[in-house]
Amino acid sequence: MVRIQVPATTANFGPGFDCLGASLGLYNYINMEFSDKLEIHVKGEGVDKIPLDETNLVYQAAIRVLKRANITRPLKIVLENHIPLARGLGSSAACIAGGLMAANHLASEFLENSELVEIGTEMEGHPDNIVPAMFGGFCLSMVHENKVIYKTFPVPFWLRFVVCIPDFELKTEDARKVLPKTVKFEDAIYNTSHTAMLVAAMAQGDLSYMNVFCQDKLHQPYRSHLIPGMDKILQTVSHKGAFAGFLSGSGPTVVCLTLRERADALGKHMVDIFSKEGIKSNYQVLSSDSKGVIFL
Amino acid sequence: MVRIQVPATTANFGPGFDCLGASLGLYNYINMEFSDKLEIHVKGEGVDKIPLDETNLVYQAAIRVLKRANITRPLKIVLENHIPLARGLGSSAACIAGGLMAANHLASEFLENSELVEIGTEMEGHPDNIVPAMFGGFCLSMVHENKVIYKTFPVPFWLRFVVCIPDFELKTEDARKVLPKTVKFEDAIYNTSHTAMLVAAMAQGDLSYMNVFCQDKLHQPYRSHLIPGMDKILQTVSHKGAFAGFLSGSGPTVVCLTLRERADALGKHMVDIFSKEGIKSNYQVLSSDSKGVIFL
Repeated sequence: MVRIQVPATTANFGPGFDCLGASLGLYNYINMEFSDKLEIHVKGEGVDKIPLDETNLVYQAAIRVLKRANITRPLKIVLENHIPLARGLGSSAACIAGGLMAANHLASEFLENSELVEIGTEMEGHPDNIVPAMFGGFCLSMVHENKVIYKTFPVPFWLRFVVCIPDFELKTEDARKVLPKTVKFEDAIYNTSHTAMLVAAMAQGDLSYMNVFCQDKLHQPYRSHLIPGMDKILQTVSHKGAFAGFLSGSGPTVVCLTLRERADALGKHMVDIFSKEGIKSNYQVLSSDSKGVIFL
Repeated sequence: MVRIQVPATTANFGPGFDCLGASLGLYNYINMEFSDKLEIHVKGEGVDKIPLDETNLVYQAAIRVLKRANITRPLKIVLENHIPLARGLGSSAACIAGGLMAANHLASEFLENSELVEIGTEMEGHPDNIVPAMFGGFCLSMVHENKVIYKTFPVPFWLRFVVCIPDFELKTEDARKVLPKTVKFEDAIYNTSHTAMLVAAMAQGDLSYMNVFCQDKLHQPYRSHLIPGMDKILQTVSHKGAFAGFLSGSGPTVVCLTLRERADALGKHMVDIFSKEGIKSNYQVLSSDSKGVIFL
């Protein structure tokens, strides 16, 4: 039997649409072992929604690894979930990354990590949650000719991610539909330059101007009507002590970067703004996770 | 009297349109002193083209500093130019950066470097040549609310820039005219992700995948008809031992990154391709410059 911990992730970090993500100190746990027949149990987040048959995402990921290793034995999987579903915190990437790495462990590490990343990216459609879920930290990723290229940087240990999670789901596919087919030339250059600066800032561990560098013109403006209150939050958090704020993944969760001592005030501020829009929400103060998937 | 050395620069480094640049080991020298009347002499590049009156760019830059410092004395300026004009190697930025820093020295360092960068960027229209000309290395720059934000990284000392300079001028304003007003959403994301990776690669000093990271979809495709042979060069240099190739600034110079021992073969290859298009060109093998403007 194997028991693993896999972190939540925030993707589309600032202007880094589809390429920048970070792992967060909020975890799902996956217990997996060979058994006589398929058996899946879920505790915690998604207990009433997550399928317990072959369509289960953790199982789907696991079976891909086992097939490659020519292993046909059934699995018993027990999921202990803390990452909320369809909120922009990488719950599906956690299932996929966790399922792949747990099964690969049962298959005596049959596949290389690079192969797992590629299977995971194929399943998820993009690598920017998969990579931080597997490896932790602040991650860059892109797909080139079906190969996933990625780089990781440490996140300053003192940085806090205040995630404010509204009480409604937003499916990535629905949030993708509102994106435009074309954008202004200057908006493309805007995100390019801001992403360059953000990566350099993280590489140097210098968070000056993070509020500037985390601005985005490629997806947040098109999605703001799907998340009432988001614009107000993003416009005000820097005055409340945040280094920066952005939509987590495709939302609806909104993230702020700040110091520990300012985190609760910021969380309450975000909840207040959602509340004025008639949206219930809750916040959590998280560190970044530096390890990705670990075996317990 | 002050004598300074100011480097050539390559901007629009790979996918980093308007934000990434690097300084090159090819220099102009500016001698500047107070005098009885305006006097400008030019040797070397541009000797027949550079104006010797108040419209001279070095003088224009110098006078901005002197005015701020309330100095009205005339200047004698002697320019020894090695950077070719209007070829995409930052000759105007060198004139501006050099003029500003030389005059500021004569004005007893009246202005801060950050102020000089801002004046220079205002004169040039964008900061991505000005910053590396002043400070050297691989530079990121952007303008936020009229303030120039920049970061610098060292360039690996062993890296060579093979610059192939075609025998025709291309004015930045003409090369700007061919750029589109809108671009595909995926092209905007393409440059964003590639720029992120390029910055991370330079920050980590790891040039793996540079050929991938230096790809661009935002300006080179629109400018290729202005520089016959460019596409062919960019498609073939990686097979000839280059880490990557790209258009320098708005062209027409094309740059390759490579090792010293491969540099001459690459230079000849680039000259050959231009030659087949009926374009005369010459190449130079340059290191990056790490210092920017220095006082001699």
